[in-house]
Amino acid sequence: MEFSSFFPVWNRLTVQQQAVLSGNVFSRKVNKGDVIHNGDADCTGLLLVRSGQLRAFILSEDGREITIYRLFERDLCLFSASCMMRSIQFEVTIEAEKDTELWVIPAETYKQLMDESAPLANFTNEVMATRFSEVMWLVEQIMWKSFDKRLAAFLLEEASIEGTNELKTTHEIIGNHMGNPREVVTRMLRYFQNEGMVKLSRGTIEITDQKKLEELSE
Amino acid sequence: MEFSSFFPVWNRLTVQQQAVLSGNVFSRKVNKGDVIHNGDADCTGLLLVRSGQLRAFILSEDGREITIYRLFERDLCLFSASCMMRSIQFEVTIEAEKDTELWVIPAETYKQLMDESAPLANFTNEVMATRFSEVMWLVEQIMWKSFDKRLAAFLLEEASIEGTNELKTTHEIIGNHMGNPREVVTRMLRYFQNEGMVKLSRGTIEITDQKKLEELSE
Repeated sequence: MEFSSFFPVWNRLTVQQQAVLSGNVFSRKVNKGDVIHNGDADCTGLLLVRSGQLRAFILSEDGREITIYRLFERDLCLFSASCMMRSIQFEVTIEAEKDTELWVIPAETYKQLMDESAPLANFTNEVMATRFSEVMWLVEQIMWKSFDKRLAAFLLEEASIEGTNELKTTHEIIGNHMGNPREVVTRMLRYFQNEGMVKLSRGTIEITDQKKLEELSE
Repeated sequence: MEFSSFFPVWNRLTVQQQAVLSGNVFSRKVNKGDVIHNGDADCTGLLLVRSGQLRAFILSEDGREITIYRLFERDLCLFSASCMMRSIQFEVTIEAEKDTELWVIPAETYKQLMDESAPLANFTNEVMATRFSEVMWLVEQIMWKSFDKRLAAFLLEEASIEGTNELKTTHEIIGNHMGNPREVVTRMLRYFQNEGMVKLSRGTIEITDQKKLEELSE
């Protein structure tokens, strides 16, 4: 598949703009676990996911993490090019959750095109609004929902992403997604196990009663 | 002051676009306490603050509130026109914190202009990025900061906005800003009072040791 068929507003750019974009975009392969973008340390450029999966998270001073959104095939990451917009005053870290192929659009190229193209600027608005909505959902979760409901929803989402009820993950990884210490995750998972909702073994969490987990998460 | 001198990218619009904007914008006065926009119940339009102060907050199902940002003179509120962008999938409520004069730009008018004007679309991007940054700051606060630090920072911010160390507010109002029950606010304020940082009386919180409060908030 070509870049042009992946880039959402390609057909709304002029031939000249398409040439600028084609001439500057490059592809990149990253391995599961690679950190692609690291806060304001670099202005990596915009990332368009061709295949694979990325996660964006924020870090506390003492090294705690919380996932703010995930990026799947065809998703575009703006915040790895935050140097492009002076009003973006926060830092995210982007990490590959799976082996991932992506296109990188240099920030200057994108900025130059966006400045002159209303379709591209409006598309960028929609992308930002989508991420904004995800973060607002997160705020509502952490403000209004108890940890048991959040963890149940997280396990169900993971199962849906992976297409399996047998999740290969650790309590620490879950803690890093949710912004909670590992011990808190372990304690709640043991409670879930006692209630028959999951079965725990080394490196695996198996969902054994999806319905009950769904009821809890609502 | 005229609308044109308040609207940031006025000079980058065409004469025709300026005419469309002028022909559709209208001014409105609201009183302290008025709810101007109520989630998805209405598509109020974009609000440009001429004078006064607004706050945007989200509501939980059981009526708890948390302030997500404030709007002051010359600030533009996009999310009161969320019908304009399909990717905005969250609801905010906008309330006047002071008697406020504002201009309302109908959502259809703004959308029509933004679709054709790259400068306006890019300006909108910057406004959204600014609000996004405020919400990311909020996420970091509620995830990584203890409530005493958050409350200290909140009192200092209020004192800075109001230009006085004698804050006319209630524990309930503070709870609604911070997403915490009133009792939690009261307990912490009493602790602050015991530590000599504030003096509490009916309807007033006086900051008596700003330096100590600042040290706590950092």
